[in-house]
Amino acid sequence: MGKYDSIKQAAYEANMQIDAFGLVLFTFGNVSAADRNEEVFAIKPSGVPYADLAPEKMVIVDFDANVIEGELRPSSDTKTHAVLYKHWPEIGGIAHTHSTHATAWAQSLKDIPILGTTHADHLTVDVPCAPPMADEMIEGNYEHQTGFQILNLFEERNLSYKEVEMILVGNHAPFTWGGSAEKAVYNSAVLEQLAEMAYLSLQIDPDVSRMKDSLIKKHYDRKHGDDAYYGQ
Amino acid sequence: MGKYDSIKQAAYEANMQIDAFGLVLFTFGNVSAADRNEEVFAIKPSGVPYADLAPEKMVIVDFDANVIEGELRPSSDTKTHAVLYKHWPEIGGIAHTHSTHATAWAQSLKDIPILGTTHADHLTVDVPCAPPMADEMIEGNYEHQTGFQILNLFEERNLSYKEVEMILVGNHAPFTWGGSAEKAVYNSAVLEQLAEMAYLSLQIDPDVSRMKDSLIKKHYDRKHGDDAYYGQ
Amino acid sequence: MGKYDSIKQAAYEANMQIDAFGLVLFTFGNVSAADRNEEVFAIKPSGVPYADLAPEKMVIVDFDANVIEGELRPSSDTKTHAVLYKHWPEIGGIAHTHSTHATAWAQSLKDIPILGTTHADHLTVDVPCAPPMADEMIEGNYEHQTGFQILNLFEERNLSYKEVEMILVGNHAPFTWGGSAEKAVYNSAVLEQLAEMAYLSLQIDPDVSRMKDSLIKKHYDRKHGDDAYYGQ
Amino acid sequence: MGKYDSIKQAAYEANMQIDAFGLVLFTFGNVSAADRNEEVFAIKPSGVPYADLAPEKMVIVDFDANVIEGELRPSSDTKTHAVLYKHWPEIGGIAHTHSTHATAWAQSLKDIPILGTTHADHLTVDVPCAPPMADEMIEGNYEHQTGFQILNLFEERNLSYKEVEMILVGNHAPFTWGGSAEKAVYNSAVLEQLAEMAYLSLQIDPDVSRMKDSLIKKHYDRKHGDDAYYGQ
Repeated sequence: MGKYDSIKQAAYEANMQIDAFGLVLFTFGNVSAADRNEEVFAIKPSGVPYADLAPEKMVIVDFDANVIEGELRPSSDTKTHAVLYKHWPEIGGIAHTHSTHATAWAQSLKDIPILGTTHADHLTVDVPCAPPMADEMIEGNYEHQTGFQILNLFEERNLSYKEVEMILVGNHAPFTWGGSAEKAVYNSAVLEQLAEMAYLSLQIDPDVSRMKDSLIKKHYDRKHGDDAYYGQ
Repeated sequence: MGKYDSIKQAAYEANMQIDAFGLVLFTFGNVSAADRNEEVFAIKPSGVPYADLAPEKMVIVDFDANVIEGELRPSSDTKTHAVLYKHWPEIGGIAHTHSTHATAWAQSLKDIPILGTTHADHLTVDVPCAPPMADEMIEGNYEHQTGFQILNLFEERNLSYKEVEMILVGNHAPFTWGGSAEKAVYNSAVLEQLAEMAYLSLQIDPDVSRMKDSLIKKHYDRKHGDDAYYGQ
Repeated sequence: MGKYDSIKQAAYEANMQIDAFGLVLFTFGNVSAADRNEEVFAIKPSGVPYADLAPEKMVIVDFDANVIEGELRPSSDTKTHAVLYKHWPEIGGIAHTHSTHATAWAQSLKDIPILGTTHADHLTVDVPCAPPMADEMIEGNYEHQTGFQILNLFEERNLSYKEVEMILVGNHAPFTWGGSAEKAVYNSAVLEQLAEMAYLSLQIDPDVSRMKDSLIKKHYDRKHGDDAYYGQ
Repeated sequence: MGKYDSIKQAAYEANMQIDAFGLVLFTFGNVSAADRNEEVFAIKPSGVPYADLAPEKMVIVDFDANVIEGELRPSSDTKTHAVLYKHWPEIGGIAHTHSTHATAWAQSLKDIPILGTTHADHLTVDVPCAPPMADEMIEGNYEHQTGFQILNLFEERNLSYKEVEMILVGNHAPFTWGGSAEKAVYNSAVLEQLAEMAYLSLQIDPDVSRMKDSLIKKHYDRKHGDDAYYGQ
């Protein structure tokens, strides 16, 4: 048994899940799973088709994005994962996809408005969309800066990464996270559904408005509040 | 053989059907099946994935929403089901989903207009959308009040629950019902189809109008009238 | 071997095909196959789920809509099929579906404009949409009149049923036909595709215009003209 | 072993792939694979259903569109393939589909704007849409002229076929190409995804703008530049 077998297995399964959920075309996505004690994460190798993945092909990387173990090159988005793990101490998994509707909103540079309880069951605010970064940052250490593009928007808007587990990176695509890689993938699937339904609602009524605060609070609290009563 | 085996089996199968029809993501839906003699219903346990369901995991609840039998917590929407069973004596099943297009209409707070015979084969009016309830009701006994939100709209609009077996709850999602749990699920699938087609028609022509009354009557009566001649 | 075994088999297979192609929800569709020598057709029994169909359950009906053989009641749309077979001597099969995009256009009472070669490969004009019939016809022998609603539009617009093998019945849904039941089903699948693509083109550019006549003619002729060179 | 077995196998597999990816309805598409040494390509026979294809049914054609080997008639679009192979010396495969969203853009006669990194990972410009050709060209050697319609647009816009491996033919449908038939099919699938996402972004915001040049360059270069670091 290797030291990192558990996160390799988790990362492998989560990567296969984004494919099974229909959230990726070809290799346009990647998931990682972190080991907080070892301060490393396992991530998909770059450009390898899902059908060819295996737990032992996952690459082990530390929170400064140095490869620790693995024969393959890690995902091209690895530095973004590293920055998020380093700055957000309580996340255990990150997922990145180019899922159709979420990416369409990201391309439109628009937050996804909170219009119904499916959304409020998961977060109490619009899904934030980070504006494209400045040219000099793009030309520099781009994937590293993408991490800060995400962190900065959360700081600017005073959002908690524990309450809002998803973001759209403008002109790019979504990132989601959570306590585990499995939860990060769950959030990617939820986000795609929220994105599709908000898109449809907007087509049905271009002047559709956000739902009322009391209903947002009720639904969020019944799943996440101190007196949550959803689930077992 | 247990006293409630029959409704547990019916509720189990109907819950599996909403998943098979693609009407739910994860656990975002629930179906119940009633035993009118015993004045109880069997309902999905809260937050349990469909893949893990089994007839014996269904929870037995009475029409005042008291758990009668079962080790798991019932669906968080149980009180809504209870209110409908209590006030509508001739329904045997209720389904709740967050199906994509029906939920999009609910988020837009709009009735689904009756535009074609697929719709008129099932009901003669627009699919009603209940406006969000008042803040104090949301903050109070919310799921119980959701039942009354539905009942009140039917009373206000003078609709018969035996003729109109579906509703959109504004900013939330659809509920459907019928003589059995299986029929309730059928109605959820029909509603999703009506919602998608009305959405498309509206995109093709934003000024699309309701179909004529004579055609509505013809199609509804050939399936449901005294001289119905659809089916065997 | 029964006298009608061949058309029963053809009708059975074609009905299963509209289900396999995703063109029907539940029992919202029906296909028939004609025997021109016997002047009868085999058609789906009314309201029977596709999973329960079998060749021997097909109902044999003559061109005046009298049941000739079969224990089940034929499709509620049988009279429409009969009228078309009676008046159009060279068709061998008819399909009726409520496929999503074609039905959406029918609900909008709009012809599907000819925008590309996929369309022109099959017909040289917009897919016609018949306006709803007068109230007294609806209240009378409705399904019989639906046949004339179709015939009348073809006469009015001077269309040939051999060149245009599809129509939208306004506020209802499409009918398609062809030399065989299999061809009728092929046309239903093609129509759904044309309907979806025209819908999308219209969303991309609301002022999209019909394609040029020379291109229509070229594509239609390479498949159907005297010097056709498509296929083997 | 036959001289052309290798390209027949490649063409066969690539044709099956466009079907498996859901990019074609019935026989509305074709893929070819070239042997640059022999100056021939293997292409799908015209009008043969995908289920009936086999490597030995592929037709061998030279770059002047003469059939060299094969008992079936080649695809009706064969002359278009031949022109592209003849003029673009570094392509090894061509794919033609009528995929839903790409074809919808072609019907609208609009370029697909570059709105996000999924697009920029593959090309740095809008996906070009060639305007319909003049009537006399349509009436003449149409499929041969379609090749020039494509070549001319690339020349006019000063595009490189090695950097831009896809085009929309106005009022018709897309063509894609690449170093191999497999890569051409990959490009068809990517194009359909780009077309769908750009369509959705445009619906969400009709005034959506192209992404910034620095971000286009960054994403294209990390996959295709001298210092590319995507993949293994």
